[in-house]
Order: sequence, then structure tokens, then C-alpha cells
Amino acid sequence: MPQTPHIERHFTASEVVRDIVIGMADGLTVPFALAAGLTGAIQATGIIVTAGLAEIAAGSIAMGLGGYMAAKSDAEHYAKEREREKKEVAEIPHEEMLEVAEVFQQYGLTESETWPIVQALKRQPKNWIDFMMRFELGLEKPEPQRAIKSAITIAGAYTAGGLIPLSPYIVLPTASAALLVSVALTLIALLIFGFVKGRFTGTRPIRSALQTALIGSVAAGAAFAIARLIGG
Amino acid sequence: MPQTPHIERHFTASEVVRDIVIGMADGLTVPFALAAGLTGAIQATGIIVTAGLAEIAAGSIAMGLGGYMAAKSDAEHYAKEREREKKEVAEIPHEEMLEVAEVFQQYGLTESETWPIVQALKRQPKNWIDFMMRFELGLEKPEPQRAIKSAITIAGAYTAGGLIPLSPYIVLPTASAALLVSVALTLIALLIFGFVKGRFTGTRPIRSALQTALIGSVAAGAAFAIARLIGG
Repeated sequence: MPQTPHIERHFTASEVVRDIVIGMADGLTVPFALAAGLTGAIQATGIIVTAGLAEIAAGSIAMGLGGYMAAKSDAEHYAKEREREKKEVAEIPHEEMLEVAEVFQQYGLTESETWPIVQALKRQPKNWIDFMMRFELGLEKPEPQRAIKSAITIAGAYTAGGLIPLSPYIVLPTASAALLVSVALTLIALLIFGFVKGRFTGTRPIRSALQTALIGSVAAGAAFAIARLIGG
Repeated sequence: MPQTPHIERHFTASEVVRDIVIGMADGLTVPFALAAGLTGAIQATGIIVTAGLAEIAAGSIAMGLGGYMAAKSDAEHYAKEREREKKEVAEIPHEEMLEVAEVFQQYGLTESETWPIVQALKRQPKNWIDFMMRFELGLEKPEPQRAIKSAITIAGAYTAGGLIPLSPYIVLPTASAALLVSVALTLIALLIFGFVKGRFTGTRPIRSALQTALIGSVAAGAAFAIARLIGG
């Protein structure tokens, strides 16, 4: 066996990156699509800016609080399932021992091969419970403070993303001129965002850039068409 | 040991429920907040309905495609990591054997206790790879067709949620009257949604109902305040 340890090089996107992606993907797309869609129906940039900022406020808060609740709910779910697993290990240890064996039988191991593990876990109830949480139920222990960090990251990314397509409507006098600049700015931002996201998540960056730009364009195109249809 | 099998009663929210929750939580909140926010600045219901429908189109498509991409990206990540694990099992089996042992050492097992497992997995490379995917990397094999199902579920839930707060603006002649009905309808919808969500996800339903209504109200209140500030 070699003396140098084998360092695991698998890439796992961190939860912060995931939250930035969640917030920015929607932040770049929805306010852009809303502003583009309203440009089809309204010429006054003032109303479009108002609608856009209201949407950014609503979207960032709703998504941020949604992320907060999701993380809280994961933490509660984990705590609740852990309590139940703890009770089962204490009250019905035989069934739980069979469950440990079952986990391994999925991987082609025989009962006699898994027996030493089952016996060893039985002597250490805390480790046994942790083992069941991860390997039987597939639940990971949530990071403390995850909920509040997640909320701030998602809301911040949504706001940062949303201000990019809206900025031309704030600066330029007519909606139609602002739309052209907004389309260009947002496409560039979506391409950069998609590229960087690809680098972080292990997808090919060029492909990720094009896919992300496509999603934004399709969402905006549909919103534009609907607003035109209704608003005339 | 009892003759009747112990049936695992742990609740895990299905992925469909999760997608409905993701779509509906934002669908009920963002279009509501946008319409309420615009009511602070605009009296014409026509523009608010246009903005609201454009937002629902943009939001449902952006979130639906976002869900599609997330599921696709999970599936690709899984496939890529599996390839790497397969290669490592073939090329550096000793390091991988040590990694199996390390997984168990976290749970207080000794090397000699884990040895039978390591030896048994070594004889079955396919099972060994699957074992490493789940237990070392914590990755679950994604369901096929997950991406398209996820996209449709999220987009549908967002649209269904978004039409509730917008409907009074479509039916009633003045924005201020529509706002009152929209607030009432949306609060009721948020309470019902929160209650049902609590039942499905294992949170106490009453608490979940109140929390969900609170999130919607805070997001809408912020959007309303911002739109008032800008739109005058």
C-alpha cells in the first residue's frame, strides 16, 4: 500500500454555491422577463421600474424566507427522525439489527458477513443511531445556522441578479430603448453566470452558459408574448 | 424475534410533494406581492393584471426550467462521480478499501470489525461502486424522467398559486377593491397550503399554516412598501 494518502478529489458544490445559484437564476430571469413583458404593454419606464423593484423585493424575500423555512424544516425533520430511531434502537433492537443487515444485503453481502458490524453497532447505541440516520434513512445532519445563512444568500443573490436587467429602465428615458439594453445586459449576465455555475458544479462551462441563457430567454419570451397578448 | 415484520414508518416527503411546495410557495407569494405592491402605485387594474400574468408566465417557466436543470445536473453529477468511483475501484483498490473502512470508523467500528465487509465488497465490484456512491459520497441514484416531471410540477403549482391572488384584479373594476379581496383570498390560500404542507412534511399543521401565511404577508408588505415609496 502506498505511503501517501489518497485524497478524495470528488467535487461537491457547497451549500452556499447552491443558494447563490438558486437566488441568481431566478433573480436574473423573472425581473428581466417581467420588465420585458411590460415593455410590450406599457411605454412609461416609471411603472416598469416600480413593478420591477416590487418584484425584486417580493421575490427575494419570498425565496429567502422559503430557503429559511426549508432549512428549518430539514433540521426539524432530522431531529424528529433521530428521536424515533433512538426509541426504536432502545425498544425494538432486534428489528433494528435486521435493518442494519438489510442495508448491506442490498449490496450483495450475506448475513454472516454483516454480523460483526451489527454486533459492534449494538454495543454503541449513539453510533448505531447515527449510522441508521445516514445509511438507512439517507439523512445528513444539518449544519447549525444553516437557515439564516441560506435566507441571506438566496435573497442577496436574487436582488443582485434582478437589478441587472432593471438598471436600463432606471437610467434610460423610453421603455423600448431600455428593453434593448436590458436584453443585451441580461444575456451577457446569464452567459457569465452560467459559465461560472458550470465551473462550480462540474458541468461543462460553455454548455452551462448556453443553457442558462436559453432558460432566461424562453422565460422572458413567454412573459413578453403573454403581456403583449393581454396589454395590446 | 417476532414473526410479524417491523414496517418502517418514517415519513419522507416525496419529491412530487417537494416540487409542489417549491412552486406553490413562490406562486402564492410573489404575484400577490407584486399586485399588492402595484396597487400602491397604480389604480388601473389592466396594467396590474398584465404585470401579474407576465410575472406568472416568467416565474413558472423560470422555476420550472430551473427545476429541470437542477434534476438534470444532479443526474449528470451522479453519472460522473460513478465513473470516477468505478475507475478508482479498478485502479487503486487498496485506497478504496481503506475508504470503506473509514466510513465505518466514523461510527466507532474497528478495522477488524469492518474487514469482512471490505473483503466481501472487493469480490463484487458493481456493488462496491454503488456502496461507495451512497455511503462515502452520500449520493442517491436519481430517478429517470425526474427532470421533466419536476419542471411540470413546479410550473403548474406556481401558476395555480399565482392565479389565486390575481383573480380579484381580473374580476373587480378598481385596484383598491381588488386588493382587499386579494389579501383575504391569499391569506386563506396560504393558511390552507401551509396546513396541508405541514401534514405532508411532518411539521405541526397549525404552526406550518401560520408560518406560511406570515412569509407571504412579509414578502407582500415589503413589496407594497417599496412600490409606494417609488410610485408615490
